[in-house]
Amino acid sequence: MSGYTVADHLVDRLAELGVDRVFGVPGDYSLAMLDHVTHHPTVRWTGCTNELNAGYAADGYGRLRGIAALCTTFGVGELSAINAIAGAFAEHVPVVHIVGAPALTSQAQQRPVHHTLGDGRFGHFTAMHADITCARATLTHENAVSEIDRLLREVRDQRLPGYLVIPADVAAGPAESARPALPATVDTTDPEALAGFVDAARRLLESASTPDDVTLLAGLTVHRLGAGETLARLLAAGPLPHAVTPWAKSLVDESAPRFAGTYTGAASPPATRTAVEDAAVLVVAGVVFTDLNSGMFTQRITRSRTIDLAPRTAAVGAATFSPVELPTALAALEPLVAEVAARRDGPAPSEPLAAPTPAAGSAPDGEALSQNTLWAEVSGFLRTGDIVLADQGTSFYGMAPHRLPAGVTFVGQPLWASIGYTLPALLGTCAALPGHRGVLLIGDGAAQMTATELASVLRERIPAVIVVVDNDGYTVERAIHGPDESYNDITPWDWPALARAMGGGEHLVATRATTVGELRAAFAGATTSPDRVTLVQAVVPRDDVPDLLAALTAVLGSAPTPAPTSS
Amino acid sequence: MSGYTVADHLVDRLAELGVDRVFGVPGDYSLAMLDHVTHHPTVRWTGCTNELNAGYAADGYGRLRGIAALCTTFGVGELSAINAIAGAFAEHVPVVHIVGAPALTSQAQQRPVHHTLGDGRFGHFTAMHADITCARATLTHENAVSEIDRLLREVRDQRLPGYLVIPADVAAGPAESARPALPATVDTTDPEALAGFVDAARRLLESASTPDDVTLLAGLTVHRLGAGETLARLLAAGPLPHAVTPWAKSLVDESAPRFAGTYTGAASPPATRTAVEDAAVLVVAGVVFTDLNSGMFTQRITRSRTIDLAPRTAAVGAATFSPVELPTALAALEPLVAEVAARRDGPAPSEPLAAPTPAAGSAPDGEALSQNTLWAEVSGFLRTGDIVLADQGTSFYGMAPHRLPAGVTFVGQPLWASIGYTLPALLGTCAALPGHRGVLLIGDGAAQMTATELASVLRERIPAVIVVVDNDGYTVERAIHGPDESYNDITPWDWPALARAMGGGEHLVATRATTVGELRAAFAGATTSPDRVTLVQAVVPRDDVPDLLAALTAVLGSAPTPAPTSS
Repeated sequence: MSGYTVADHLVDRLAELGVDRVFGVPGDYSLAMLDHVTHHPTVRWTGCTNELNAGYAADGYGRLRGIAALCTTFGVGELSAINAIAGAFAEHVPVVHIVGAPALTSQAQQRPVHHTLGDGRFGHFTAMHADITCARATLTHENAVSEIDRLLREVRDQRLPGYLVIPADVAAGPAESARPALPATVDTTDPEALAGFVDAARRLLESASTPDDVTLLAGLTVHRLGAGETLARLLAAGPLPHAVTPWAKSLVDESAPRFAGTYTGAASPPATRTAVEDAAVLVVAGVVFTDLNSGMFTQRITRSRTIDLAPRTAAVGAATFSPVELPTALAALEPLVAEVAARRDGPAPSEPLAAPTPAAGSAPDGEALSQNTLWAEVSGFLRTGDIVLADQGTSFYGMAPHRLPAGVTFVGQPLWASIGYTLPALLGTCAALPGHRGVLLIGDGAAQMTATELASVLRERIPAVIVVVDNDGYTVERAIHGPDESYNDITPWDWPALARAMGGGEHLVATRATTVGELRAAFAGATTSPDRVTLVQAVVPRDDVPDLLAALTAVLGSAPTPAPTSS
Repeated sequence: MSGYTVADHLVDRLAELGVDRVFGVPGDYSLAMLDHVTHHPTVRWTGCTNELNAGYAADGYGRLRGIAALCTTFGVGELSAINAIAGAFAEHVPVVHIVGAPALTSQAQQRPVHHTLGDGRFGHFTAMHADITCARATLTHENAVSEIDRLLREVRDQRLPGYLVIPADVAAGPAESARPALPATVDTTDPEALAGFVDAARRLLESASTPDDVTLLAGLTVHRLGAGETLARLLAAGPLPHAVTPWAKSLVDESAPRFAGTYTGAASPPATRTAVEDAAVLVVAGVVFTDLNSGMFTQRITRSRTIDLAPRTAAVGAATFSPVELPTALAALEPLVAEVAARRDGPAPSEPLAAPTPAAGSAPDGEALSQNTLWAEVSGFLRTGDIVLADQGTSFYGMAPHRLPAGVTFVGQPLWASIGYTLPALLGTCAALPGHRGVLLIGDGAAQMTATELASVLRERIPAVIVVVDNDGYTVERAIHGPDESYNDITPWDWPALARAMGGGEHLVATRATTVGELRAAFAGATTSPDRVTLVQAVVPRDDVPDLLAALTAVLGSAPTPAPTSS
C-alpha cells in the first residue's frame, strides 16, 4: 500500500459522487483492491453473506443516495449478483458493479484459472452484462483512470448500473492523485423545445378554471431524476390534486389534503380514479405504466387533455417536445400553475380527497391477525422518517393503498419484482440514510430466499422493525394458480430463533404474533427500544390476500386482452 | 389439465433421459407448467429456497445422474440461477434450465410486464446464456416439440447445460403423445484414426517392461463421459499404477494397492510425483490442468512418453488422432495393457504405492480440533457408498490428499470454485443416489452463502452428515491476502440453532465440537442414527490451514511465472 493507485482513484471518485459504503463479498481476485476501501477515510466496506444479497443492498442504497457501489469477484461472484444488476437496470438505480479479475499478466497466458469457463477467455461475463448496464469498461494500465471516469459519469448521468472489470494488477498500478472533480451533469434541454412546450401547456391549462381541475399523477422517474422537491413546489403552487402510482409511493406527501390516493387503473378506489381519469387537465410526471403499476394496463388516460413528462421528452396532447428534461419541464410548469391558481375565487379547498392516514386499526386485541388487520396496524405504526420496504408480494399489495405519513420513504420493486429483494435492501437503504428506522415487510417465502442477510442487518446494528408475514408459502402465487399444489409450499421456519442463531444478541427482540394484540405489543416494544432490531413473525391465514391483490386478480379475470401474467 | 400438452412432452422426455426430479422455484410464468411436473408418474418437484441454490442442487444431481432439470421463472428467477449454470458449463454438467416465460400473446404486445427490463423485448436473457450453454431454444407453438428434442439431445450428447424458454401458452398447447424415443448417442470415432492411435500406443508401450512402468493419471472427463467402468477394466488389466487429479477424486478406487495418490503437481507427495512424472509411459485420461487442479500449473508431463486422451482426440507423444472418443480409446488400450502384463515375470506387486486409507486419527479425545485432526477424523469416518461434498475452501484442500474408501463418491468444484455450492448440491446428489449417505464438508463463510437450503435438506429427510467448519471467516482468503482485514470476517452463527429454526425437528441432531472427542461423539451418533441429519459445527483455529493449502501457497510464492491467483 505505498503510493497512489488506480484502486485509490476509483474509491476517491466514488466518494466524490457521494458513496460512503461499498457492498460486496471478497474474492481472491479482489482482495488487494479491497484494502483501498477498508483504509479509505470516508468509505466503508460492508460485507454481505452472498453476492445477490450484496447487489440488493447496493440497489437499496443507490435508490436513496443516487449512486451505489458493489464489489464482487470474477465469474462466480459477479454472476451471483447479476439478477440484482438487471433489477437495478429495470428499476433505474445507478449501481457501479466493480469486478475484481485475474491479473492481466495471468490473462495473457490464457490458462484455465479458477472462476473462469476454463477456455482461457476472459470476456464472457462482460458480454453477459451488455443488455443490463448503461456502460461497461475493462481496465488496462493505459486506460484505467479515463475509463473509470467515463463509466462513473455514465452511471451518474444515465441513472443506470455500470460494469467495471479491474484486473488485480491494474488495481495496484500507479495513478495520479491530484485530479479535478468530474464535470457536472449537463441539462440537455433545448430552449426552443422548452418554449414550445410551455406555450402548449399554457394553452391546455386554459381549460382549467381552478387548480382543482388539474390533477398531477406522479411516477418513479421524478424520484430517480432527483426532482422530488421541484415536484413539491409545483404541487404547492396550486395546490394541485395529486396521486401516485404504486412504483412511486412516498414521492409526494401522502398526508396532504389534496392527495388523491394511489392510482392502479381499474383497481383504484373510485375517488382516485375520478381525480386522475376525469381531470380537465392531467399532468403525468415520470410515470411508466407497467402491468403491476397500472392495474394490469387498465389505466385510462385521455391524451388530448394530458401533459406527459418523460425523462427527456415533454408532451402536450399529441405534440411532443424534445429534448426537454423532466426536472426542467416540472419547474417550467410551476408559474403556469400559479397563473391557474390566480384565477381561483376564494380559498383552496381543505377537505381531504382521500381517506386520512390511518391510526392503528380498530380490531380488538384478541382478534386473529389477517392481511387486512396486519396492514392497518403496520400503517398506524409508521412515523415520519421511516424507510418502509415492502416485498413484491402480499406486503406490497397490502401497503400500496395505505396513505403514508409525511416524510416516510417507501421502497418496492413492482417492475423487476424479484421476491426476497427487500431484506438485503433494508441493509442498503438504512446505510444510505443513517438514523432512519427501517421497516421491512416481507412474506415468509420471499424472506427464505435472502434470509442469510439478517446476519448483516444485526451486525450493522441497524434500527429496524422486520415483519415476516407467515402465511405458509407463496400466497401471491396461490392466488394466481395452484392454491393447493406442492410447488407453492415452503418449509415452516421459526424466524425469531433463526435471527437469534445469526448472532442477534441483545440487539434483537424477536417474537411471534398471531393476534392483533400480540402485534401491537411487539410494535410497542419497538417504539420503546428504537435502536434495536424488532422481528415479528406475523401469522396470517394461508389463503388470505390483501384487497388490492384480490382487485387486481379480478381485473386480470375481466381484462379484454390476454392477461400478461396469466399462465 | 386435459389432453397431452407441450409441457407433458417435455417432462416425459426428461423422464426418458433418466430425470426423476425437477429442481426450482415457482413463478407466475411457470406455475401452470409445474402442474405437469407434480402430476407426472415418475418425476417429482423439489422446490428450493432460491434459484441459485436450486441450480446448485440440479448441478449436483446432474453430476451423478448424467442429466438434470432446473425450472425457474423469467428474468428474476433465471438470472438468480445463472452462476450455477455457468458453473455447470465450466465443470461439464448437463443441466436443462427450463424458464417459464410470459405467454406469446403477451409478448406480442411488447408491453412492460413484470420480470422484464420494461422495454417490451423478451430476448435479453437468452442472449445472456449464449456463452454458458451448449444450446438454447425459445419455443413457439410451431417448433415446441422439435426444439425440445433438439435441445435435450445436445445437452445429453455434449454433457453441458442447455437453456429452454417456454412461454406459458406454449407449455399449455397440445402435443402428440406417442413419439419414438430420442435417437441414441452416436460414437463419432473414425476407425482409421482409432487404428492409428492403437498402433502408436502399442509402439510406445513397448518401452514398458511390466505394467508397473505404466502409470495412468485419471481426470474429470472420464467421469463426465460415463467411462468410469471402462477405466476400471483398463487399470485391472495391468494392474496399472494410477493417480487422480483433485477434480476427479473418487473416479478410481483409492483403496486399491496400486493407487498412487492425488496428483497436484509440485504440491503432490513425493511418491505420487514419482509415479506420475517418472513413469516410462504415462496415460493421461481426461485430465484438464486448471490452476487449482495442477498445483498452480506445476504439473510435469513429458509429452514424448505420454498417451493423452481428450474427449474426442487421442494423442501418443506428438501425434494426435481425431475423432477418437475417450471411452473408445480407453477400451482400445485395455488389450494393449494386457500385452504388457503378459511380459511380467511373477505376480504383480502387492505393496501399496500410497499411504493406506486412514482410520480415525490418533489424536487424544481431549485435544482441540485443528484442520489436520478434523480431516483425519472425517476420513476415518467415511464408508463405502458415501457421497462426500467438499466445498472449495479448506474442506476441499483438507480432503484432497486423503485416500477415500472404495465406493465413495467425491464432489468438488475446483475450476468454477463457487463457494457455498456444496450445501445445495448435497440436496441434489442425495436425490440422484437415494439411499446413499451425504457427507457435506463446508466452511462457515461458504455455508452462510447458501444456508437457507438446509431447510430443504431437512424437509427431504436426506440421510446426511454436515460438518460446518467454524474458523471465523474466509480462511482461504486470509491465507492469500489480508489475514486481519475486516473483509475476511463473517458474523458468528449458532449453526445447530439455525438448523433447528429451519424445521429440523426430530430428524436433526445438531451439536458443536471443539475437541477431537466431541467430533468423534457426533460421528458415533451419526452412525447410530443413519437416517437423520447430523450437523456438527466444528470449531478450528482461525488461521489454521490444511497442509495442501499451505503447500499450494508455497508453490504460488515460488512460481516462476506470475501466479494466476495472486492479487
